Amino acid sequence: MGTVYLVGAGPGAADLLTVRAVRLLERADIVFHDALVEPDVLAIAARAEKIAVGKRCGAHSTSQRFINKRLVDAASRHAVVVRLKGGDPMLFGRAHEEIEALAAARIDFEVVPGVTAALAAAADTGVSLTRRGVARSVAFVTPRVGEGELPNAWAQSAAAADTAVIYMASGQAGEVVAAMLAHGSQRDLPVAVVENAGRPGRSWRVGRLADLRALAEAGAGGPALILIGEVVRTLATQAVTAAEPARAVA
Amino acid sequence: MGTVYLVGAGPGAADLLTVRAVRLLERADIVFHDALVEPDVLAIAARAEKIAVGKRCGAHSTSQRFINKRLVDAASRHAVVVRLKGGDPMLFGRAHEEIEALAAARIDFEVVPGVTAALAAAADTGVSLTRRGVARSVAFVTPRVGEGELPNAWAQSAAAADTAVIYMASGQAGEVVAAMLAHGSQRDLPVAVVENAGRPGRSWRVGRLADLRALAEAGAGGPALILIGEVVRTLATQAVTAAEPARAVA
Repeated sequence: MGTVYLVGAGPGAADLLTVRAVRLLERADIVFHDALVEPDVLAIAARAEKIAVGKRCGAHSTSQRFINKRLVDAASRHAVVVRLKGGDPMLFGRAHEEIEALAAARIDFEVVPGVTAALAAAADTGVSLTRRGVARSVAFVTPRVGEGELPNAWAQSAAAADTAVIYMASGQAGEVVAAMLAHGSQRDLPVAVVENAGRPGRSWRVGRLADLRALAEAGAGGPALILIGEVVRTLATQAVTAAEPARAVA
Repeated sequence: MGTVYLVGAGPGAADLLTVRAVRLLERADIVFHDALVEPDVLAIAARAEKIAVGKRCGAHSTSQRFINKRLVDAASRHAVVVRLKGGDPMLFGRAHEEIEALAAARIDFEVVPGVTAALAAAADTGVSLTRRGVARSVAFVTPRVGEGELPNAWAQSAAAADTAVIYMASGQAGEVVAAMLAHGSQRDLPVAVVENAGRPGRSWRVGRLADLRALAEAGAGGPALILIGEVVRTLATQAVTAAEPARAVA
């Protein structure tokens, strides 16, 4: 039996993979990857069979069960099986369902953490998610609803945190505003919509919570994160960041 | 004038650096690093002068101002200046103070994100921080108090989130319990204290919120994170993780 590695692919750029992820991809016999993983990341797995298994978090439960089954099957035929997930596997990645399937089948596995998109968005924009005297708590949430979940259960946590990062929400900006206001957030709270964080073509738009829907709809349709909180205020006032800062390393 | 790179060193293991971080360290003329950065990470910066600038988040404002000044001075003498921070620079790393000093001095800078300790803890333990039907929100907080901050301002956010990760709290476990209970958390909420996440010698202890102080005090004194929430319950019941899972890559 082989080992299954649940590996974080990071936010998109191949050089934001960890060294451990690169070494595993180089050794992989087979790679099951999310649709959002970039071609130059997959190219590292030169000798592996590469299988796309659907858009991250867009997969419904039937296809998740199918992915679980394929991982178990692959471990009986290959020594190094990589399940490559956008960002980090343990944050909005449904890794627990795969882990439980592997454990039930008594297959060895290991999780390799990755750079999550929120931290790439912070790096790109120059906005620290925490800031002395301004923010000591950050909430990562998603309004995406799974089976049996309440639609607004995320909003209390986002509103209670000094900084909120909302994943997979660009199509639900109107609902985000309504839920945050209902949980006590102020209409003029600074927000940023960061598109393609950690990828080529990254960009962001800054405004207030009340304007969030318009900011989200002005985007080009790439994967987007929403940052909410006083820490974002500096982005609107400081002239120290650019949409494409000079990159010293290829 | 050179460029200053604020680089995330990740949780500790050298192979959890990003490829971009490794390339920058290889090219660096001078590296200012936190005390928690491991020697084999620093060894990558073979040709650089290496300067320890105090324990992360333990530095008071005077020494932070001194670090800011040294970064600005170094950029006038070197092409590639690396400021290497444990975990990710933009999460509990005081990067904003360095960014503002660099911006004020009109020095080019770039932030390179890293794997934050919470995600290493999740990978090590096999506990997904989010879980369909159980957790859709995660709060990263710290009870460490800076100048002019209220002691318990973090607790509302931690208690409101489905999963809370508490950074730099191993010495304040008693205060964490009191603050979480005061904000409505239940005494029997599952908790884990994860020591040396993403490092050799990692270990964890699992219990309930009411037991947190004893769990924290039973540790060996390494850097520790506290995980709180229903997602941790699986750690107590599933036999699928080990304190030192087989590592396939060096």
